[in-house]
Amino acid sequence: MAHAKQSKPGKGKAKKAQKPAKSAKGKAGKLDKAAKKAAAKLAKAQAEGRDRTLRPDQAKALVEKVAARYVEAEAAELAPEPAGSIGSLLRLAPGAPVDLAGFDAGATPGVSSRAQAEAQLPALSARLSALQERLYADAVGSGSPRRVLLVLQGMDTSGKGGTVRHVVGRLDPNGIRIKAFKAPTEEELAHDFLWRVRSEVPQPGQIGIFDRSQYEDVLVAKVRKLVLAMHIARRYGAINKFEQSLVTEGCVVVKCFLHISLEEQRERLLARLEDPEKRWKYNPGDVDDRLLWPQFQDAYRVAIERCGTEAAPWHLIPADRKWYRNYAVLRLLIEALEGIDPQYPPGDYDLAAERARVLAS
Amino acid sequence: MAHAKQSKPGKGKAKKAQKPAKSAKGKAGKLDKAAKKAAAKLAKAQAEGRDRTLRPDQAKALVEKVAARYVEAEAAELAPEPAGSIGSLLRLAPGAPVDLAGFDAGATPGVSSRAQAEAQLPALSARLSALQERLYADAVGSGSPRRVLLVLQGMDTSGKGGTVRHVVGRLDPNGIRIKAFKAPTEEELAHDFLWRVRSEVPQPGQIGIFDRSQYEDVLVAKVRKLVLAMHIARRYGAINKFEQSLVTEGCVVVKCFLHISLEEQRERLLARLEDPEKRWKYNPGDVDDRLLWPQFQDAYRVAIERCGTEAAPWHLIPADRKWYRNYAVLRLLIEALEGIDPQYPPGDYDLAAERARVLAS
Repeated sequence: MAHAKQSKPGKGKAKKAQKPAKSAKGKAGKLDKAAKKAAAKLAKAQAEGRDRTLRPDQAKALVEKVAARYVEAEAAELAPEPAGSIGSLLRLAPGAPVDLAGFDAGATPGVSSRAQAEAQLPALSARLSALQERLYADAVGSGSPRRVLLVLQGMDTSGKGGTVRHVVGRLDPNGIRIKAFKAPTEEELAHDFLWRVRSEVPQPGQIGIFDRSQYEDVLVAKVRKLVLAMHIARRYGAINKFEQSLVTEGCVVVKCFLHISLEEQRERLLARLEDPEKRWKYNPGDVDDRLLWPQFQDAYRVAIERCGTEAAPWHLIPADRKWYRNYAVLRLLIEALEGIDPQYPPGDYDLAAERARVLAS
Repeated sequence: MAHAKQSKPGKGKAKKAQKPAKSAKGKAGKLDKAAKKAAAKLAKAQAEGRDRTLRPDQAKALVEKVAARYVEAEAAELAPEPAGSIGSLLRLAPGAPVDLAGFDAGATPGVSSRAQAEAQLPALSARLSALQERLYADAVGSGSPRRVLLVLQGMDTSGKGGTVRHVVGRLDPNGIRIKAFKAPTEEELAHDFLWRVRSEVPQPGQIGIFDRSQYEDVLVAKVRKLVLAMHIARRYGAINKFEQSLVTEGCVVVKCFLHISLEEQRERLLARLEDPEKRWKYNPGDVDDRLLWPQFQDAYRVAIERCGTEAAPWHLIPADRKWYRNYAVLRLLIEALEGIDPQYPPGDYDLAAERARVLAS
């Protein structure tokens, strides 16, 4: 069940579930974070030639500023491990009616603060890496068909690209397959709408990422009336059949709707206009879509209601806070992989004989 | 010109070019590295359930052990910026005869120590990120056709996958396109050998990575006699024409031969057999190829001689040391992007009018 606005999830219960942090580990984590961020800021500034004259005392102040957040975090006795499943908090129950306006885009279900989430990141990131390697190894070594497909949908500025950068960026690129779907080309339009999607699904052992997806064909196509309503109506069923076939083939489908508020979108669009280095990200067409906000929200509601299935349920990710969005998708990916529970395969060769062959060569 | 065995490159001259490190930045970098590595080890051990009982004193010892390397590095007065071009040290002169056995696979041209290389990583990584974003922005915002293709070739265990993990892993996944070429399928064999390669080249703004490439068709195809010699002979010219067309379209082609020694390959194959979590990486066929080492080296020699062009030269990356291989490819990528010198595009819209539209919406 997903968190409704009135429930204020992730506060009371989560805190009681916390175990006291081990002090040495906690301190190492804080040092790490503080120094890492400060060093990265410094290096970025220098690389961009923005601040070649940063003095040692300024650098020190920067480290201390970032470190301060972690002192606060220590006082809150950080939980080294997240408690419970975030999927169960974010999953929208298949078949149930959806009221998007009822969900607080600024909520943080499953975690009580940014500091708590960030303190968990090193361990979560390591777990993700270990699971990804085993998924890949299992496919290569045992022919396992298992794979994962992460589907990211959301309004402009909701953070699809940011999720790819910060969450997918933690994965080993050897095992990922990313596809950003743009407006369909002439050739793509000449085929069934799923044609271009089918050719981009992840292969066994891979984690696939769709930045936009088959859902654009029941969202923008519907709102902009690019396709007759009777064709849109048929597409929900086609999508369900397609996703069911993926699941049958061994693919776990993790669908995420990045839910931002109208106000937050305004701030993000303005930020793109203010910063000369972000102006290229701004597209006047984004405001055209923004003016159709209610229509898009309704199209999302219908898509989620019609295509939220037991095989491939939708997750609603509150996305006004970028750190929470990243944290939530990271944990959903981990839970998807834990559900698969991939194992390192034994070699299907004679170990002693191969050792002898290598030594003799 | 590439570094020959006798020249011991990266020693004398590089040291003189070093500037004294700024102490605050140096210390932040060291803290960062030490704490980061220790935290990662800790987290990995815990994630894998290998050591849930690590005591605080053990954690402290781990941090100190890793930190020790950086104390040594400080004494050497690390250069915060690499001096000169690594491309000029690693590029094999087009048209010149190549003697692979004459290159020391353990050399480290352009850097005097691992500590020096690692001290440069935060700044190099930040520069790579900044350049990648500008490359992408330039394509999206100004329609620039510029792009980069990194081609990785080398014997089994030479570190193609490791380079993708550690170097490509530093990039924003939104702007990369990775293709690992396997043995061709029936369908691929039914087409010209470049057919499957053409469909995988990077699009404008992207950094493409080929893990194996069109060169397999003049390497394994030649050594294993999968194709008539007369066809192999024609392929070199076809590859040159193909790569020239990429360059003409705005693509910088960075070709890297990861050069390892026969001895290092033995160690790496044995390591895969020893570690139960690495056994899936071992393939008995790797030893079959190893037994044909001289034939493969000769096929590489011919490919490099025939396809080392001014438009798309080959680089020889000494790859017995993994840290050097990663460092060298990272710097080559940065130099390729610096050659393009991509810029943030100005928005092609009326800034004031758009600001007003957003505020009114």
